[in-house]
Amino acid sequence: MNEANVNLASRQTWRGLAVQIFDELRAKTFDGVGITRECYAEGEGIAIDVFRGIAESHGLNCSVDAAANIEISLPGDDGSQPALILASHADSVPHGGNYDGAAGVVAGLLCLLRLREDGTMPRHPVRLMILRGEESAFYGRANIGSRALFGGLAARDLEAKCRGGGRTLCEALKSVGADVERIQNGETLFDIGRARAYLELHIEQGPVMVARGLPTAVVSGIRGNVRHRDILCRGEAGHSGTVPRWLRRDAVFAVSDLLMRLDEHWTRLLERGLDLVITTGIIGTNADQHAISRIPEELHFSFEVRSQSHDTLEAFYELFRSECRAVSDQRRVKFEFDDRVYTEPAKMDEGIVRKLVQASEKLGLPAEVIASGAGHDAAVFANAGIPSGMIFVRNANGSHNPHEAMDVDDFMKGVDLMFASIVEGY
Amino acid sequence: MNEANVNLASRQTWRGLAVQIFDELRAKTFDGVGITRECYAEGEGIAIDVFRGIAESHGLNCSVDAAANIEISLPGDDGSQPALILASHADSVPHGGNYDGAAGVVAGLLCLLRLREDGTMPRHPVRLMILRGEESAFYGRANIGSRALFGGLAARDLEAKCRGGGRTLCEALKSVGADVERIQNGETLFDIGRARAYLELHIEQGPVMVARGLPTAVVSGIRGNVRHRDILCRGEAGHSGTVPRWLRRDAVFAVSDLLMRLDEHWTRLLERGLDLVITTGIIGTNADQHAISRIPEELHFSFEVRSQSHDTLEAFYELFRSECRAVSDQRRVKFEFDDRVYTEPAKMDEGIVRKLVQASEKLGLPAEVIASGAGHDAAVFANAGIPSGMIFVRNANGSHNPHEAMDVDDFMKGVDLMFASIVEGY
Repeated sequence: MNEANVNLASRQTWRGLAVQIFDELRAKTFDGVGITRECYAEGEGIAIDVFRGIAESHGLNCSVDAAANIEISLPGDDGSQPALILASHADSVPHGGNYDGAAGVVAGLLCLLRLREDGTMPRHPVRLMILRGEESAFYGRANIGSRALFGGLAARDLEAKCRGGGRTLCEALKSVGADVERIQNGETLFDIGRARAYLELHIEQGPVMVARGLPTAVVSGIRGNVRHRDILCRGEAGHSGTVPRWLRRDAVFAVSDLLMRLDEHWTRLLERGLDLVITTGIIGTNADQHAISRIPEELHFSFEVRSQSHDTLEAFYELFRSECRAVSDQRRVKFEFDDRVYTEPAKMDEGIVRKLVQASEKLGLPAEVIASGAGHDAAVFANAGIPSGMIFVRNANGSHNPHEAMDVDDFMKGVDLMFASIVEGY
Repeated sequence: MNEANVNLASRQTWRGLAVQIFDELRAKTFDGVGITRECYAEGEGIAIDVFRGIAESHGLNCSVDAAANIEISLPGDDGSQPALILASHADSVPHGGNYDGAAGVVAGLLCLLRLREDGTMPRHPVRLMILRGEESAFYGRANIGSRALFGGLAARDLEAKCRGGGRTLCEALKSVGADVERIQNGETLFDIGRARAYLELHIEQGPVMVARGLPTAVVSGIRGNVRHRDILCRGEAGHSGTVPRWLRRDAVFAVSDLLMRLDEHWTRLLERGLDLVITTGIIGTNADQHAISRIPEELHFSFEVRSQSHDTLEAFYELFRSECRAVSDQRRVKFEFDDRVYTEPAKMDEGIVRKLVQASEKLGLPAEVIASGAGHDAAVFANAGIPSGMIFVRNANGSHNPHEAMDVDDFMKGVDLMFASIVEGY
């Protein structure tokens, strides 16, 4: 066999292993509709067990950090030298897809296994971190596992209850062995000196790469966001048949009015070229009180604005609060705001972006640089001062839904790009 | 003692009994926030037991009809003669008030007890019906107890599940001994020949009588309504950070848009003098799927339009469907409609209205005639061909909420008016 054949055979093997892991993950965390891997709970634990099983059966070393994230290293790595950190997350949103998070972990695993099998020793150690709790769906705060490492969880984050009114985040962290005392104290649990760089592979969650025909892309930066998990609009209950329009204080009409005002501003700001998306993903009248024939007194809703620009985020947030005041006056309702949660935008390291672009060119992949609309743990590491980069893999139908569709051939191109950059050295 | 003193003492006794019954009802059906008397369930049953207890301890006869409503008659009434039916309902909305429904039952009880004590024999028998299931809050259909008597419950009404996904209405009816087979067959269970007339006392549920200083009023007619219990707006899920505005199919923005379009029409139609109220009392994203960071795919909502005019109801309903089509096109969502539920407006009998106005004048009460914004069982009896009338009693803060506030002195004026009209004869 010549070298090309060896590489081909080897490539088929890695591809087969990737498919096997994705299939096992899907089979074990399918909920009947999509994939659910609740953070600090059963689904995420199942995924971590699958990853650890593969790692340990191939002779890699696994350890758990103080925030209950998993670290996987090559034999012979005593942990004393600063490493390139490959990372991604094991959790998913409820009824999500199989690849959001998992693709990055599998990519990291394949790179470590390939380094081990090839006997290639990169200039600096390479480690894989399997992060927990990246999705905000369960506790309203994203990047829990990475924030916990950098003192980035506030008391109110830790007191947040799991969706549906379950246990608090603090209780959930404790249940998987995280050192909640140190997390509560805001201590830094990750020694920044141990990381030379941070690299994360992720499926693209928007429609850009499919539209532009890009199997892989290099990420320039990550959108930040401002959120309220739960705003209460409080009006006044009344019989639906007897209170005339001018005497109503209808919470549903008030919030509808608010959202249409914001939609109008959004449209105008997009026309001016600003980067902006706004979403109210959760909304509902109070099930204990609402009725068809009752003017709705209470409406709970979430609010989120995302942008790559800090200034746009803050300006739109001010507009939002100003429209809330206007609606309050005109429709005689009150808005009660929970804590504002801010996630700052992050720029990827220019040197790493350049390195990934060059590696793409060498591999004959498109050397395209695009922005990430979604948040990622890479933003937390980047904002902690660790040079960070991201590789995107094409994926149809977006993410956070059961229909996400990544082609494994595209995925293997992303793994090749990651591996080539590792061999090049960080 | 002269006659005036006797009447004064007697009046104080009846007033005391009314207060005692209202207090007992409140104590027994207070839910921590307001009053809950779920129809065909515990709360309504408790209220019926209180009423029956008073009736039986005073020597009145109680029986149960085929729809599980209660009929109370004076001793000596063998049921063979057509009677004046006094009636009201025993149920309430969740977290409602103490008087919506109960006031009419207590008024009927006081009139029967006063007839018995006075030894007055009116020209025709007088009976009291305690109706069940008047409120639509639990099964999405109002006037269940009266409709059941006139074949007015469709198969889909009987299959409707109790709010929160409980048992069906059919199961609920069966649990209190109603003859569900005959109800399912649409049989008439109430012999119209047994009723000369129907008279219902009720608190006003709107702000008109407080504003105009009317302790009592005579009702001219009852608003009808068109309803959907549960419309589904279906968009497409997606990651909230990555899908640009023009590619979104956001169910929450779509329904907000729809409601603001309807609000605009509503305002214009009111300016043209039409009688109209519209309400979306229930709205919510799907709790199994929604998340702050997910574009909402599904939004369920109720829709109701009320008017005294059949033509206005139908015209506005057409407008509503037309705006649903427009929003579907522009925001690329779909609306899935459950069955439309229509409750026709009803006119009160002109002779009875005249009689009640004359009796008001004799008693020195205002002889005002006003429309009922809310639906009542009186509409079902009226539309079944039984001459019907209603007396309203002033009540602050509307109804269907814990803050409804009827003054017992106003209530006693309403009872006096009812009693005077009975003595006058129907």
